Amino acid sequence: MGNTYGKIFKISTFGESHGVAIGVIVEGCPAGLGFDLAFVQHELDRRKPGQSRITTQRKEADTVELLSGVFEGQTTGMPIALMIWNEDQRSKDYSHIATQYRPSHADYTYQAKYGLRDYRGGGRSSARETAARVAAGAVAKLLLRQLGVQVQAYVSQVGGLKLEKTYQQLNLSLTDLNAVRCPDPDMAAQMFDYIDNIRKQGDSVGGVINCVLTGVPAGWGEPVFDRLHAELGKAMLGINAVKGFEYGSGFEGINLLGSQHNDAFYTDQQGHTRTRTNHSGGIQGGISNGEDIYFRVAFKPVATIMQDQESVNEAGETVTVSGKGRHDPCVLPRAVPIVEAMAALVLADFYLRNLSAKIGAKV
Amino acid sequence: MGNTYGKIFKISTFGESHGVAIGVIVEGCPAGLGFDLAFVQHELDRRKPGQSRITTQRKEADTVELLSGVFEGQTTGMPIALMIWNEDQRSKDYSHIATQYRPSHADYTYQAKYGLRDYRGGGRSSARETAARVAAGAVAKLLLRQLGVQVQAYVSQVGGLKLEKTYQQLNLSLTDLNAVRCPDPDMAAQMFDYIDNIRKQGDSVGGVINCVLTGVPAGWGEPVFDRLHAELGKAMLGINAVKGFEYGSGFEGINLLGSQHNDAFYTDQQGHTRTRTNHSGGIQGGISNGEDIYFRVAFKPVATIMQDQESVNEAGETVTVSGKGRHDPCVLPRAVPIVEAMAALVLADFYLRNLSAKIGAKV
Amino acid sequence: MGNTYGKIFKISTFGESHGVAIGVIVEGCPAGLGFDLAFVQHELDRRKPGQSRITTQRKEADTVELLSGVFEGQTTGMPIALMIWNEDQRSKDYSHIATQYRPSHADYTYQAKYGLRDYRGGGRSSARETAARVAAGAVAKLLLRQLGVQVQAYVSQVGGLKLEKTYQQLNLSLTDLNAVRCPDPDMAAQMFDYIDNIRKQGDSVGGVINCVLTGVPAGWGEPVFDRLHAELGKAMLGINAVKGFEYGSGFEGINLLGSQHNDAFYTDQQGHTRTRTNHSGGIQGGISNGEDIYFRVAFKPVATIMQDQESVNEAGETVTVSGKGRHDPCVLPRAVPIVEAMAALVLADFYLRNLSAKIGAKV
Amino acid sequence: MGNTYGKIFKISTFGESHGVAIGVIVEGCPAGLGFDLAFVQHELDRRKPGQSRITTQRKEADTVELLSGVFEGQTTGMPIALMIWNEDQRSKDYSHIATQYRPSHADYTYQAKYGLRDYRGGGRSSARETAARVAAGAVAKLLLRQLGVQVQAYVSQVGGLKLEKTYQQLNLSLTDLNAVRCPDPDMAAQMFDYIDNIRKQGDSVGGVINCVLTGVPAGWGEPVFDRLHAELGKAMLGINAVKGFEYGSGFEGINLLGSQHNDAFYTDQQGHTRTRTNHSGGIQGGISNGEDIYFRVAFKPVATIMQDQESVNEAGETVTVSGKGRHDPCVLPRAVPIVEAMAALVLADFYLRNLSAKIGAKV
Repeated sequence: MGNTYGKIFKISTFGESHGVAIGVIVEGCPAGLGFDLAFVQHELDRRKPGQSRITTQRKEADTVELLSGVFEGQTTGMPIALMIWNEDQRSKDYSHIATQYRPSHADYTYQAKYGLRDYRGGGRSSARETAARVAAGAVAKLLLRQLGVQVQAYVSQVGGLKLEKTYQQLNLSLTDLNAVRCPDPDMAAQMFDYIDNIRKQGDSVGGVINCVLTGVPAGWGEPVFDRLHAELGKAMLGINAVKGFEYGSGFEGINLLGSQHNDAFYTDQQGHTRTRTNHSGGIQGGISNGEDIYFRVAFKPVATIMQDQESVNEAGETVTVSGKGRHDPCVLPRAVPIVEAMAALVLADFYLRNLSAKIGAKV
Repeated sequence: MGNTYGKIFKISTFGESHGVAIGVIVEGCPAGLGFDLAFVQHELDRRKPGQSRITTQRKEADTVELLSGVFEGQTTGMPIALMIWNEDQRSKDYSHIATQYRPSHADYTYQAKYGLRDYRGGGRSSARETAARVAAGAVAKLLLRQLGVQVQAYVSQVGGLKLEKTYQQLNLSLTDLNAVRCPDPDMAAQMFDYIDNIRKQGDSVGGVINCVLTGVPAGWGEPVFDRLHAELGKAMLGINAVKGFEYGSGFEGINLLGSQHNDAFYTDQQGHTRTRTNHSGGIQGGISNGEDIYFRVAFKPVATIMQDQESVNEAGETVTVSGKGRHDPCVLPRAVPIVEAMAALVLADFYLRNLSAKIGAKV
Repeated sequence: MGNTYGKIFKISTFGESHGVAIGVIVEGCPAGLGFDLAFVQHELDRRKPGQSRITTQRKEADTVELLSGVFEGQTTGMPIALMIWNEDQRSKDYSHIATQYRPSHADYTYQAKYGLRDYRGGGRSSARETAARVAAGAVAKLLLRQLGVQVQAYVSQVGGLKLEKTYQQLNLSLTDLNAVRCPDPDMAAQMFDYIDNIRKQGDSVGGVINCVLTGVPAGWGEPVFDRLHAELGKAMLGINAVKGFEYGSGFEGINLLGSQHNDAFYTDQQGHTRTRTNHSGGIQGGISNGEDIYFRVAFKPVATIMQDQESVNEAGETVTVSGKGRHDPCVLPRAVPIVEAMAALVLADFYLRNLSAKIGAKV
Repeated sequence: MGNTYGKIFKISTFGESHGVAIGVIVEGCPAGLGFDLAFVQHELDRRKPGQSRITTQRKEADTVELLSGVFEGQTTGMPIALMIWNEDQRSKDYSHIATQYRPSHADYTYQAKYGLRDYRGGGRSSARETAARVAAGAVAKLLLRQLGVQVQAYVSQVGGLKLEKTYQQLNLSLTDLNAVRCPDPDMAAQMFDYIDNIRKQGDSVGGVINCVLTGVPAGWGEPVFDRLHAELGKAMLGINAVKGFEYGSGFEGINLLGSQHNDAFYTDQQGHTRTRTNHSGGIQGGISNGEDIYFRVAFKPVATIMQDQESVNEAGETVTVSGKGRHDPCVLPRAVPIVEAMAALVLADFYLRNLSAKIGAKV
């Protein structure tokens, strides 16, 4: 359980880090959507390893294969299966961690829960699984694009280096132009050096990814439990290494009084109902109000480090877990497309759920 | 949609702030659990209005009625329906907000989504709905109590007043002894005065609630999308006025390197696998590891204030929304049992989901 | 589990035969639907006991109460809670069956599954629970009526008395004009006498209910597992005492060859794609094709009879279960509105599910 | 939507008849189950085309590939992905039916619902999709086998040829020994000749498959909507060409009075609660009672025939649909493993759902 997401636009992922393949079934995508496999591949390329020296040097081409659900370039309403073969998965030697529990990994908890585990590269608990989500998220983005909705994430903090500018003060089209995926070139350069230094120490560092959703019309999201931000929060917290989520004014909003925090309504020149400020983060009562939606996601420093660590094995004996191989000293640059993918999946689902909100409802 | 929560231990709530009644159906509670209606009422009493002068003076007895699912003091495995009548709901006059959009409330978004709304007291978007969750959460607590699991929340911050002590440094049994529900008596007194002052200004203030889950065995939670902390996050973000969620080291964890953040395993004197630190917050790979689970929930200052505010009405005309009546200047004291209820519902569901994790699996 | 039905138009029922109340939450009904409580009551009246001397003489007014989800005569998109109080439920004496297993009832299986049971009147396994479904089905009918869809069931067989006419040869508006709910007056009179005779013997008899769904446009239903007829089948088999379901040509279709059974397409004078015959029963590949949908539901003779029967008790001892009190010698007349309610719930859900079938899809 | 089945033991299938591949993700299978890929292949071989001259001569090896969820021969609790490549799928020419609606196929309804369709071999509406279910069902059978539960189906009727013996009078181990999968050798020979004759005429014929589930303990199934037989019914009606379902006494039960139909309880020599007759078909109140479960499934003559038929095309013009190529004159022999697979999936899910029925519940 736990391997599916969504109510109408629904995905199921499968696969382990060093199994035969990973993949995803996207169900509930409306028929008649133009399908663009090159775009799916483009999104996967943004997540794949080896993009620069501050990401893991593991080699995975991550070539996606389309198995079903598209006919003559259009979605058919049938499940869209996308698969990525794992390369060289048989050649790896993981016997040294077969019985050891790596600190702050899922080794111990999977063993406790299931009584056994696929220890090769972390099995299913590896972030490799997120490639399947990025593929599915690309399909969601194709759907959202038709509706004029855009999903843009970027790295806003790495360790102590924090970008103080708001998203309105940044040019988000610059995000993908550097290896860190921070749209401020100066800050990006600082972050790069910082991460590279951490890499040389064999250590890891965390940070924050910001995400902005523009073009979402008023009315997406559901009351009570399935609020738009609650699903965004769940989706983000379901990404490996995420420790926190806040939207709109977030934790900082505590420092304002209600009279300062409330977003006054006004009618703009086009006759639309708008708010003068946007502490609400584009969501009120769990439902989008037509303003920009924005949120922040905290990532811990990843657990894999190239240093020796004390731990125990399955027998309860003290062992030393050795750091060796290749790792990501900072996952944030590669997590940007993952955050976007999960946000796109949430939005696509709420778009479809909203179709039945009222008699004769549209978009 | 959006009015149900849970996969096996599942609740459906209904009712509007000023409708006939609110209530909940709890489905999936195992048969043979001793049912304690007085405990359910006790939890509701912790949430009900009018507990002190810093909470709204609205009068609601919130007496719960049991309609089904219990026979001779035990749950039967059938749906447990719990209902709370709304008192005096017919006498209120809400015509002044019938067409106005109160700033940062759900008036506008509900209108946009549904084409109409029950404007009386906010209808279903009112926090009154959370009484139904507290009733359901009490049933979940009864189940968890049998398993030795405890759920304890408390107020740790109000506006700028922040309790710096960790939960280990506090005596959580003191939480309910003051009107603020902060377990540090000195800080509680300061917070009380601060809130009371805000109340006199007709303004509102937000804050943070911390929550600690003890006694959860290793193995609860599911991989990938339904991680224990992802569901906790969704559950918390589904509470009115919540803007952020973090667990374990949270947003602060960014300031540590991986070598500092990783929780080393050791074997304790009873032979249990334990961690020396707990930056993981009791959850690794989305699954509990047997350590304490702890998280923090940020609440904005509530939107209802006793001051005049600029806004628009359905016709798009500028209007002044007047503050009148009674309000909660700070929802946190009453939100403590709501946070606990939602956490208990998450845990009860994961407990039951875990029963099928492995061949012959138990608890 | 098992107490909810539907994906978008979704119901959750609660309550036991002799508990405080029974009821239902209808979630997912679109906002803006005119709500007609008198119609809901009318449907319940069709199901209630005591309508003639061939139904049980138990007295239940079955007055429905609306608790939420409707404002100023329209649905709001919020959960619609409907409740029916049980009358006199405290005065009954069921101690004689507290430990006995009534043959072909659910006493033994509930005891085996749950370890205890509410034995009063069969608890939740009683057909009294279906009143909640009829109330919910009435809401579904209100929605379908707006779309021009009609749901009509009638009794076509009681024991050996079988109506050979097809639904096209009958005037279905006559159905409710007699106590049996058979639209052929002569056959209805024969059935009445037959059932009355069975009643005098303290025995029971089964039969068949036919149902016709007209006005369903092409496109409702989903591929593979959630075919329109598969959900109709599940819904019917979920009604107490149902043993079989067939649609279109059903079991009789076996006697035709493919060349005889296939429904040839033609284009009618309005330019619509139609079929010359309708062995498909209005459903092809699990999806409606615009022709009438029709199906048949087999009911066994109900288990409650007014005769002594051999059985065992919880201790495994042989006992005699005595027939006493009041019973329905034939449930079919009262089951007609239940069949209609379940069919309406299936259709309402598929209508809403179909809204997301294709880009820009409508009805 | 509609491409997933199950609540805990849950499957999602994908793939079109002439797409790249078909496959299935099995989620929720407990960890620690011995996995036997050869057995999965064996089940697929029972379903594959070309087994005798009375099944289609289409050549598909249907070799299954395991992609995930198994490690060192055991299930890991992670999704089990199984894939079958379609062979030669690119070489087929279907342009002649690209715009024609084949009578009693899903061509028209898919076109109406989705606005376009993959017309090659019926796309996803083809029974080829059921290969994925057979693969998933094999996994369910592996789980059930551990619990002592057996699932056995057989052909009991082809056109007018009906086997009058009950399953107790047959030796079900003979079922797979003939091409018809009828356990009575004499009847099997008659059926073979009959089908072969139909084949020569280019026509098709339907029939009935019976299924028996033995070893199911008391307690599986859920109340109200998710009764064991309701889910069995839905599962069977979800198989291509199925028109009817009945369990226990079924439609025939109508000819008995309640006093004849009720199954008297007694205590057997081992102290178990048993019933003297089994008109209930092993299910009472929707829950298994420990007796054999048996049911019957009606299949229409399949729509594909080798004869010319009148129809229309997308433009509404009258056309002649030509019969050509290869077809199954009678699908029943190949449908036997499909019926078993769906029944096994239903049972596996109810087994796991039952784990949370009561405090401390087991199997």
